[in-house]
Parts: sequence; structure tokens; C-alpha cells
Amino acid sequence: MRVLGIDPSSQATGFGILDYDETDCRVKAFGAIKPSRRLPFHLKLYEIQKAIEELIRTHDPGEVAVESPFYAQNIKTALALGQVRGAVIAAVAASGCSLHEYSALEIKKAVTGYGQAEKQQVATMVRALLKIEEELDPDAADALATAYCHLNTRLFQKKVEESAL
Amino acid sequence: MRVLGIDPSSQATGFGILDYDETDCRVKAFGAIKPSRRLPFHLKLYEIQKAIEELIRTHDPGEVAVESPFYAQNIKTALALGQVRGAVIAAVAASGCSLHEYSALEIKKAVTGYGQAEKQQVATMVRALLKIEEELDPDAADALATAYCHLNTRLFQKKVEESAL
Repeated sequence: MRVLGIDPSSQATGFGILDYDETDCRVKAFGAIKPSRRLPFHLKLYEIQKAIEELIRTHDPGEVAVESPFYAQNIKTALALGQVRGAVIAAVAASGCSLHEYSALEIKKAVTGYGQAEKQQVATMVRALLKIEEELDPDAADALATAYCHLNTRLFQKKVEESAL
Repeated sequence: MRVLGIDPSSQATGFGILDYDETDCRVKAFGAIKPSRRLPFHLKLYEIQKAIEELIRTHDPGEVAVESPFYAQNIKTALALGQVRGAVIAAVAASGCSLHEYSALEIKKAVTGYGQAEKQQVATMVRALLKIEEELDPDAADALATAYCHLNTRLFQKKVEESAL
């Protein structure tokens, strides 16, 4: 099972790809898409959308997990975040991958056991859980955490289904 | 000069295309993109994005005008509107058309002379200004008003430039 996790943001959209094969969970790729700051906003969205399409084409994940924003500081932030998210999930829809959404609380809980964890705690736990030795961009860490949360949910569902047989 | 005006919304994204050739302003096309209500949200965005791409391919407008949302009722509405807008403006960016944004106040003022005009007043004025005889979908009317506002701005700019020569 291959999962692409995405953390959308106009400045740095994090991505992380995890492979799971019954015995092991491996990190396939991670990073952040950072459009040039000088680009007009709609061209930034296009850059992000193209990069997501390219990631899906290259790594062929069956499933994509994205944080579902139930919260934004204010309406201006919500409009900006919404626009990046729209460009991202339209690209996922175009690829035919299934889209799965998790709240920040679910994602933080999946990796740290605590829904109110700080960004730094999430990054530290992601590195430990996925045995990543190098420094981790916080946006890539959030994306990997989202993918990890989805894998967790999937594996739990599978166990429940197996035990019901 | 051919302008595509767009009024983004997940339920009905209005569009309107205007041609201007020094002597006359003609309505080339208008309508609303209404994705099936049963579709998951990200597939709705994809439908809207595809339809915008198709409109641009078919009618080849050089310029696209979209309402710039400075206002939303609440954070949830802002996130939803933002997502549709993101899918729309990423499609415009991909097409290479130039993107022009106007506030609701500017658009209403351009067609009715009054920035606080009601939706119905906008539709009535759009029908009168553009000599549209049939009933007009309110979302298509808003999109035509946006295109009209952009044409107005362009023609004004041109006059200013000419008088400065």
C-alpha cells in the first residue's frame, strides 16, 4: 500500500510518501513544494498543482491523505488556505486516487498520542517513528504525519475486518 | 478583446464571455457549471476545473476576470469558497490567460452604479446593458457583470493612455 500525504500551504506544501507491505513501513519520498515568492498567487497555485500531479505520476500512490482544515485564524487565512487546498485536491481528483481527510487532532494523535501536540513534537515523533536521520522540513513532517495517520486508520480497519471473519 | 468572467461556487460556478471590438460589446456565451450534488467535494472541484479549461480552450479569451472575495460569512464558508476559487484560478494560470480580480463592490458599481446593489438588481442591469432577452441564471449574471467590469476598466485605461499621448 502506498500513501501520499499532503500538507497544503501557498508558501510550502509538504508531501510525504509511505510504503507499507505487511511487515514494514518505509519512507519513499518527502519534501516541500515551495513556489517562488515573487509569483502571483494564481501561478503559485498552478506550480503546486503541477508538482502534485508530477508526484502522483512518478510514485503512483493508490491513496492520498490531506489534512482537513476545520480551523483557520481568520477569514483571510481561511480563503488563502482554501485556495491552495482546492488546487491540491482537484489534482488528486484528476489522478483518480482516493482522497482521505483527517483533522489536525487525528493526525497529531496518531503520531504523538496527543491531539494538541506542538509542530516540533510532531516532527520529532515522525523522525523517530519512520527512522529518518536527516533534518526534516516541518511541512514535510506534517505531510508524513498525515500519511502515517492514514496508514494507521487503514491497518486498524483491516484488523477489525479480519477479526470479524 | 474577449473576456471570460467567472463567479466561483461549488454548487454553481457562473461564467460569461464578452467580446468587445471598438464599436460594440457582444455576449458570446454564458451559463453556470453545476456539478452533481452527489459528487464528493474534490470531484466537484475537478468537474469545475475541467469545465473552465474547456471554456478557455473553446472560446480562447485573452483575459479572465474573477471576483476577489474579501468577504465570507464565516470561516467554514471561506474555506469552501476558497477551495473552489483555487481550482478555478489554477486552471486560468495553466491556460496562460491573464487573471484580473475585482471586489464585489467594484463589480456592482460597474453595472449598477451602486456598490451595495442586490443580486437581482445586478441581474436586471446585466440583461439591460448586454441586451439579453432570456431569463438569466443569477450566477451567470454575476459572471457577466465581472467580465463587464473588467472591460470597463480596460477601456478606461485605454482612454487615459490615449489622452496622455
